[in-house]
Amino acid sequence: MDIVSTLGLTNFVMQFSRISMYPFFDMAHYTLSIMKLKEQPVSCRYQGMCMNSGEMAVLPEDISEDESSKASEEECLLHSSPDIDNLIGAVDVAHRSPIACWFSGMLCCFGGAILASVLLGEPPIEPFTNNRNIILASVIWYLIFYCPYDKFYKCCNFLPSKLFIAGMKEVTRARKIVAGVMDAHSRYRNGWLAVIAVGWAKGAGSGLIANFEQLVRGVWIPERNELLRMSYGTKVTLIGAVLFTFQQMNYLPITRHNLIFLYTMFVVSTKVAMVLFNIHHSPFAPMEVALYHMAFSWQCTSTESHFQTEASNTGETLGTQCSAPLDASPEESESIKRRRAKKAE
Amino acid sequence: MDIVSTLGLTNFVMQFSRISMYPFFDMAHYTLSIMKLKEQPVSCRYQGMCMNSGEMAVLPEDISEDESSKASEEECLLHSSPDIDNLIGAVDVAHRSPIACWFSGMLCCFGGAILASVLLGEPPIEPFTNNRNIILASVIWYLIFYCPYDKFYKCCNFLPSKLFIAGMKEVTRARKIVAGVMDAHSRYRNGWLAVIAVGWAKGAGSGLIANFEQLVRGVWIPERNELLRMSYGTKVTLIGAVLFTFQQMNYLPITRHNLIFLYTMFVVSTKVAMVLFNIHHSPFAPMEVALYHMAFSWQCTSTESHFQTEASNTGETLGTQCSAPLDASPEESESIKRRRAKKAE
Amino acid sequence: MDIVSTLGLTNFVMQFSRISMYPFFDMAHYTLSIMKLKEQPVSCRYQGMCMNSGEMAVLPEDISEDESSKASEEECLLHSSPDIDNLIGAVDVAHRSPIACWFSGMLCCFGGAILASVLLGEPPIEPFTNNRNIILASVIWYLIFYCPYDKFYKCCNFLPSKLFIAGMKEVTRARKIVAGVMDAHSRYRNGWLAVIAVGWAKGAGSGLIANFEQLVRGVWIPERNELLRMSYGTKVTLIGAVLFTFQQMNYLPITRHNLIFLYTMFVVSTKVAMVLFNIHHSPFAPMEVALYHMAFSWQCTSTESHFQTEASNTGETLGTQCSAPLDASPEESESIKRRRAKKAE
Repeated sequence: MDIVSTLGLTNFVMQFSRISMYPFFDMAHYTLSIMKLKEQPVSCRYQGMCMNSGEMAVLPEDISEDESSKASEEECLLHSSPDIDNLIGAVDVAHRSPIACWFSGMLCCFGGAILASVLLGEPPIEPFTNNRNIILASVIWYLIFYCPYDKFYKCCNFLPSKLFIAGMKEVTRARKIVAGVMDAHSRYRNGWLAVIAVGWAKGAGSGLIANFEQLVRGVWIPERNELLRMSYGTKVTLIGAVLFTFQQMNYLPITRHNLIFLYTMFVVSTKVAMVLFNIHHSPFAPMEVALYHMAFSWQCTSTESHFQTEASNTGETLGTQCSAPLDASPEESESIKRRRAKKAE
Repeated sequence: MDIVSTLGLTNFVMQFSRISMYPFFDMAHYTLSIMKLKEQPVSCRYQGMCMNSGEMAVLPEDISEDESSKASEEECLLHSSPDIDNLIGAVDVAHRSPIACWFSGMLCCFGGAILASVLLGEPPIEPFTNNRNIILASVIWYLIFYCPYDKFYKCCNFLPSKLFIAGMKEVTRARKIVAGVMDAHSRYRNGWLAVIAVGWAKGAGSGLIANFEQLVRGVWIPERNELLRMSYGTKVTLIGAVLFTFQQMNYLPITRHNLIFLYTMFVVSTKVAMVLFNIHHSPFAPMEVALYHMAFSWQCTSTESHFQTEASNTGETLGTQCSAPLDASPEESESIKRRRAKKAE
Repeated sequence: MDIVSTLGLTNFVMQFSRISMYPFFDMAHYTLSIMKLKEQPVSCRYQGMCMNSGEMAVLPEDISEDESSKASEEECLLHSSPDIDNLIGAVDVAHRSPIACWFSGMLCCFGGAILASVLLGEPPIEPFTNNRNIILASVIWYLIFYCPYDKFYKCCNFLPSKLFIAGMKEVTRARKIVAGVMDAHSRYRNGWLAVIAVGWAKGAGSGLIANFEQLVRGVWIPERNELLRMSYGTKVTLIGAVLFTFQQMNYLPITRHNLIFLYTMFVVSTKVAMVLFNIHHSPFAPMEVALYHMAFSWQCTSTESHFQTEASNTGETLGTQCSAPLDASPEESESIKRRRAKKAE
């Protein structure tokens, strides 16, 4: 609070927290969500994949997020070249069944609102009663998937405009978290866990329900979900949900307007930096590793032995991943690839 | 409206719209739903299927619906003859676990009501509080699955009686759509999209939740869902939901009674014709293809190149399916089979 | 009732039905639920498993429950020795993503309350508003998964303490069923089916939603669900739900207190005996087989022929499982293994 008032920003912050998200910020959110949907790598379905003797099943979670799209393409080359029928990308779905693609797109845009509704026992169809936003999202969906020569997608994907869109999208994040937190807090005064959960769901819902969004497109990758391997967006939303819940419960000495402003500044600048410098690993990684070691890893030796007992039953020793459990570093995924290549020979 | 009044049918139409669905029409609906469940082809589970080098994964969506049961049997012969353990049909489930089979049957009969309840935030268990209907459906389920020498199923499957049952079942469709539309409209005055969705869910719910109904029986085919490849019933229900929603919102110059009557006549006659002449492709196919080309396909060339870029990464050019995107024609599925046979050699 | 009053236990029974479950009985329930989660066999994912020519897909439901963990380890040795990457046990998840593991643990502890909430259209997040119980469960989760040298788990798994915990856990079962039955009965006076369902869901919810709990951990075994192959706990809860529903509807000449007492005595003694003598097959098996033969199997010959028609299409005759449909006996699973071994040669 002091920072804001000493900088004489009080008025600006008040006005900032009153800016309407509709239409421009919402538009940025829809555009980025549907672009992300379109960019879904042409996914080999791992379940039905043909695996010959000696080849290992490639588990998506082994691959660090920043390399996943590249790696999975390589894997396709390596393993499943005859499985061309298996490829189902969102673009393919857009041509097979526009309705499934549209519904998938709406789940990406309104996933947070839907998940929060489900958690609070409200009709999950409620976000679809907001005609204005649905029509806006549908128009953007149409332009991104079916615009001639892909002009719209290419324009949005052009670095300066992408930077701009990504920044604007992040502005909506704080608002959504606050809406979720306030809604849940009005029902459950003391249920801080439920309040955090609803705020998190509202802010990062489309990630959390990704498994079911994929199911609409006929893709099912149970090994990969946002809880098992959180993306940056999901993590930063969780932190935001915790902060706003504490603020709401008066545990933080800061007003809501100021917290919205500071949080938004943080996520916008981080996101812009990540897009600009093509950073894909989470900026929280060192903090996470430290926290992980502090809270969960001090008995690593004991579980290591447990692992080895089980692994020895199946004929091979599993390299325990205590050193970098939350994010496989590029080096590690390199080594995994090398190991795989060896096996394939 | 004019047609109805000029034919002097006004009274008849009024009385028609007041006929009680219970017990005979409901009975027909339950019978047909559970017969369809029983007829589920003994499904090779595609996920766990044994695939040797050079054999391609057979994706269900490649196979046009009318040939799917035949084709999947052939595929079984071709690919998975040693996988006899993989076969799980509904009859098999009926003998392993009557409770799972019963629950699966109830989901087929009451899927629409359950899905509509979920969408509107009402208890999904509510359809199960209607003892009368549940008992009726359970008796029919028992007779179809466990009647000695399969007498009941054979009687119902006899062409004349099947015609009669199929016609009666279609009468319930309009009623269910109207119930869903009116229920949703009473809550969301202007949310026409939500109203359409609830009407559609109520009328075609068992198809839309088919993935989860299958899960009860231990079958999981993510590649196949009603949104990716709509059946005739789902399509005609969607059209009905749109019509009844527009009528409800006074955009159509027709009374509800007359619309119910005309829609019912249309679906009953179409269905009877389809059963009688063993037609399996959707009568809307030409309209759909035209609509598809008009709305989604005029930039086909641009996405084709997109496809080829991605496909060339994986070593083979994907034949884009722009020409018949919504329903693979028999010729196409023939060519797929031939391609597969070649690979298998 | 007479038994209780003739034994002069009326007072004791009244007091017994008023004992608070928090904290000790709840603690036992959380401990046992999370121990069971931790003991989840390092599961080969069957969907993505490498299967070479002649090897059969190993379906989990072929394996009787008591042998499943052992058998699946053997299967791992037999089939998927190179698939070491496929192994995902709960312990592994605990080290990769503590949040997914924690959420999985909470679903095991509060699955019943969550499922009952969903069925009744109430917010599924409500169990998470009970901070006291959530914190208790979280502490136990932490101790079981991350305690140094696995001390806590080993202590709880020591036979005498396990007996004690298992007995205490069963005491909570009756209470949860009664809570579910009374809640549902207050809404649906005559919907006895819905009342039974909610009672069952509240008492055995964590089993019934096991598929989705596994999904959180990245595991997906559609072939195995509690409806297809009920565990002892699920069965005894179903019986309890039926009894308490009938009592609630005044069809049983017994007071609720006495029924709670007698049911609890039964489940506690059965469970303790099962843990003590390492019995894994359901004590209801003979009753079930009799009931099955009476209700569902008298037309076995007719369906047998149906089976054979279908099986002959796929080149092999399926051995119908009419003789022991509900629980594969050890001999049977032995024969399955032998059959498989033969195939593998």
